[in-house]
Amino acid sequence: MPEFRRDPVIGRWVIIDPARKFNKSVPSETESYPKDHSGCPFCPGNEYMTRPEIMAYSKNQDRAANSREWTLRVIPNNQPVLAIEGNLKRRGEGMYDKMDGIGAHEIIIETPEHNLKQDSIVPEYYETAYRAAVARIKDLRNDTRLEYILFFKNYGILANAVFEHPHSQLIAMPIVPKRVREEINGAKEYFTYKERCVFCDIISQELSDELRIVDENEFFVAFCPYAARYPFETWILPKNHSSDFDNISDEEISCCAAITKSVLAKISNVLDDSAYSALIHTGPLKEKNMQHYHWHMEIIPKLIKTAGFEWGTGLYINPVPPEDAAKYLRESE
Amino acid sequence: MPEFRRDPVIGRWVIIDPARKFNKSVPSETESYPKDHSGCPFCPGNEYMTRPEIMAYSKNQDRAANSREWTLRVIPNNQPVLAIEGNLKRRGEGMYDKMDGIGAHEIIIETPEHNLKQDSIVPEYYETAYRAAVARIKDLRNDTRLEYILFFKNYGILANAVFEHPHSQLIAMPIVPKRVREEINGAKEYFTYKERCVFCDIISQELSDELRIVDENEFFVAFCPYAARYPFETWILPKNHSSDFDNISDEEISCCAAITKSVLAKISNVLDDSAYSALIHTGPLKEKNMQHYHWHMEIIPKLIKTAGFEWGTGLYINPVPPEDAAKYLRESE
Repeated sequence: MPEFRRDPVIGRWVIIDPARKFNKSVPSETESYPKDHSGCPFCPGNEYMTRPEIMAYSKNQDRAANSREWTLRVIPNNQPVLAIEGNLKRRGEGMYDKMDGIGAHEIIIETPEHNLKQDSIVPEYYETAYRAAVARIKDLRNDTRLEYILFFKNYGILANAVFEHPHSQLIAMPIVPKRVREEINGAKEYFTYKERCVFCDIISQELSDELRIVDENEFFVAFCPYAARYPFETWILPKNHSSDFDNISDEEISCCAAITKSVLAKISNVLDDSAYSALIHTGPLKEKNMQHYHWHMEIIPKLIKTAGFEWGTGLYINPVPPEDAAKYLRESE
Repeated sequence: MPEFRRDPVIGRWVIIDPARKFNKSVPSETESYPKDHSGCPFCPGNEYMTRPEIMAYSKNQDRAANSREWTLRVIPNNQPVLAIEGNLKRRGEGMYDKMDGIGAHEIIIETPEHNLKQDSIVPEYYETAYRAAVARIKDLRNDTRLEYILFFKNYGILANAVFEHPHSQLIAMPIVPKRVREEINGAKEYFTYKERCVFCDIISQELSDELRIVDENEFFVAFCPYAARYPFETWILPKNHSSDFDNISDEEISCCAAITKSVLAKISNVLDDSAYSALIHTGPLKEKNMQHYHWHMEIIPKLIKTAGFEWGTGLYINPVPPEDAAKYLRESE
């Protein structure tokens, strides 16, 4: 059973999970996924290799669960970071605090196609994945032990994606992660001072500056943030204020999918199919409809190593000004 | 000129430095340092390849600056992250905040020997490096533009050490880095509640639990922290309360060097000469002698990749319980 442990100085929770595979050697860029993917548990025909599915989309309305003929499939992770059964059992250990690693870890298999290439992805691909994520978040909201749900995607070996088959992940956890709490606190201070949402202000500023804009449509805007930590870091924000991703409307989902497709295609073009992580920052489950917080997506291409300086300070050095990164991306197809 | 930019939501400063080399490809574990190191700017005889030295130790009291015959040499980094000349020029850019990248970036060349191996390092090696760092910090304290000095070492390509020649670094900056500020704030809350230093309490707890202890001597203790973020993460703390590294006594420096040597040798043995970053967290320059803060060293072997989940949450998953890591290290030579 994984466990949460709390750093007694800064209150950062860490998951200690001895069941996870640990190699002394760091996977390298020369490492690649196996050519033969007949053993891929996410491929059609291999449904028996995963735990029973949580939901699936199919063109066949009479499809039996865990059979073929799906277009998208949501399954529990075979090696979950957090386990769904049990209670948190918050307790002390001397001066320290810990609790059991309770939560949910689900995989959204986005397509039956193992080798789907970036340039054959259509916006509807992301639309379907977002609809599934929203449905899962709405369902997981019923579990009162949970405080936060992280919806994210790691793409490529360097971004730590264990499986090549296109997928994204949901991790539902009994704590609000530190980075999200920091954002909420910062946004709240700004709101207290200005009586405006800081993210709404950022959108206005970016649309007026134009310098860092990557793409825009009716409901969304994509830009490289002013204080980008990483080269080509790109954020996607909904223009309409909302703190909760799963409050997204059908129209907005289409627009969100379209801009995701456009931005990821540009990143893939400019950065030679670079590995990346994309994550959605949304409000905690028990703090809905916040005036001061604004959900958004952060996309971080995995291009540089961080080392002692970054770890030790939380101060990042970025060699690519976001204005330059945005220009490259904007001018790419 | 590099510039500091402030994230408007969480207040995190980022250094945007377009002058730094940026490759699209991430250096891999198979990459190695060049075999021929005749062009190493840190080697004796190549003193002309660096900017003029700031200080040096030598057995020859009459040695001319920037000549051979040194045992340790401190130089300004040829490609500094921050520049020493100029003023901060704090200013706005629309809703955003920025300032010039003012500070100091110095390299401590720890030895004339390019290929010094871990097992031929003696404790005096670290003692000399620490004495030089303390001398530099005391001198840099005179520059009132500076708020913080980070003393750190990256070892190995995977830890982003550009040069193979043994060296550590000092970065003096006009801000207090976010991670240090978080520690100070957390420690202050603890002190307000308990009227005790949280780090002093951690030392007592660790010495009494014994489970996570790696090594101990008269003035220092080394252990794997209870909520370790990374496998084999190890902290070294002075037993006597002090918030400022450069307040260290001569006796303590010897003990600190001895335990550093011991811990790094153990890490090298257990983890096959793994890359690592080691950093000293000390009090900000303008907040001396804090009752609630306690300087310490954090050593992080570079063994695993972090990906979307960690970036997006600040929540780390560690597959090696610190109790196991400490046992391996303790039992190694």
